[in-house]
Amino acid sequence: MILYDADMPAPNPRRVRIFLAEKGIEIDKKSVSIIQGEHKAPGYLAKNSLGQVPILELDDGTILCESTAICRYLEALHPEPSLFGAAPLQSAMIDMWNRRIELRLFSTIGMYWVHAHPFTAKVVKQYTDFGKSNFKNAQNIMRWLDSEIGGREFIAGDTYSIADISALCSIDFAGFIGIPVPEECANVLAWHKRVSDRPSAPA
Amino acid sequence: MILYDADMPAPNPRRVRIFLAEKGIEIDKKSVSIIQGEHKAPGYLAKNSLGQVPILELDDGTILCESTAICRYLEALHPEPSLFGAAPLQSAMIDMWNRRIELRLFSTIGMYWVHAHPFTAKVVKQYTDFGKSNFKNAQNIMRWLDSEIGGREFIAGDTYSIADISALCSIDFAGFIGIPVPEECANVLAWHKRVSDRPSAPA
Repeated sequence: MILYDADMPAPNPRRVRIFLAEKGIEIDKKSVSIIQGEHKAPGYLAKNSLGQVPILELDDGTILCESTAICRYLEALHPEPSLFGAAPLQSAMIDMWNRRIELRLFSTIGMYWVHAHPFTAKVVKQYTDFGKSNFKNAQNIMRWLDSEIGGREFIAGDTYSIADISALCSIDFAGFIGIPVPEECANVLAWHKRVSDRPSAPA
Repeated sequence: MILYDADMPAPNPRRVRIFLAEKGIEIDKKSVSIIQGEHKAPGYLAKNSLGQVPILELDDGTILCESTAICRYLEALHPEPSLFGAAPLQSAMIDMWNRRIELRLFSTIGMYWVHAHPFTAKVVKQYTDFGKSNFKNAQNIMRWLDSEIGGREFIAGDTYSIADISALCSIDFAGFIGIPVPEECANVLAWHKRVSDRPSAPA
C-alpha cells in the first residue's frame, strides 16, 4: 500500500503520520505538493475527487480517503496498541471526543484558515468578518476543552487515542496560523506538552 | 439506559432514532424540548456541557454524547445488522463516507442554518453573506455526491450503513430549512427515495 502524504503542516496528513508512528508501522509514502497544486492535478483527482490529502492506495488499487478512515483501517490490520479503544464504552468515548474535536475545534480553526488567513485569500472567496470571528470562537472552544480535561491524562480518558492525535494536529495547526492556546488554559497546555513529548509528535 | 432525544427535525437525534429502528432496538427515551431551551438548562448542561442532544445515559450514570458515538456503542452491543461494517475495508469505507457527509455536506448545511436562517437569527450573531453562500455550496456538494454514487445502491457501497443515515438526516434537514436537492441529481434523488422508503425513515 502507498500513503499519499503532504509536505505541509496540514493537520489531516499529519494525523496519519502520528498514527503510524504510534503503531510503529512503516508504509511507502508518496509526497503530494499542496503548494504546487499537485492535489488538484487530474491524476490525483481521479483517485480522490475532493482533491484532499491523505489517501491510502491499497495493492489492488482500492483508494481509501479521509484521515480518520485510513487510521481506522490501519487499526484493524494492526490492533496494538489500540488507538480507537477496545471495549465498547471506551471505544465510544474515544469516538465522542474525536467527533467533538473534529466538528467543534478543528472545524472552527478551519473556518478561520479558509475565511481570514492571507494565504487562503489567494484561492477562495473569503468572508473575512465571519472568518475573523472564528479566532475568538476557537479560543473559547480551547477554554471549554480546558474545563473538560482537568484531572485526566488524555483527551478521552486514561489512555492515548486518536482523539489526542486529532486534538494535537488541530491545536498545532491553530498555532501555525496564529491562534494560540489562551495562557489560562493550564490543562490544555499541560496535555499539549505531554503529547508533544511523545516520540510520535514530530511526525 | 436512557436516550435524551429531541422533539425537532434536528438531524443528530434523528440519526440515533433511525439507527435504533434499523437495529430493532427499544430504549427508554426522555424528550428534551429544544424550542423551550431545555437543552440549555443547568440539569442538562451538567450531563452535556455543550448542551447538545442526543445523549445516552447508561445505568451507572455514565454519559455518552455525540450521535455517531452513541450509534457506535449500540453497534458493539447489538452487532447485527451491521451498520458500521464488519470487515476492515468495508468498515473503513463506511467511515470515509460518513466523515465526508458530516464534514462536507452536513457542516455546510449547518452553516446555512446558523448564519442565514431566520430562526437562528434570534439566538446567534449571524454573518448572513457567508451564511447565504452555503446554499450554493450545499447544492454543489449534493451535485458532487451525485457524481460519486451512480451505479450503487447506498452511499458507501452495496449495503445500507450509518453513512446513509447521516446523509438522509442531512438532506432532509436541508430540505426543511429550504435547500432542496437540485433536480438534475438523479442518483441522489433515487437514493433518497430508496432510503426514505425503509421502515426506519419516519423515526
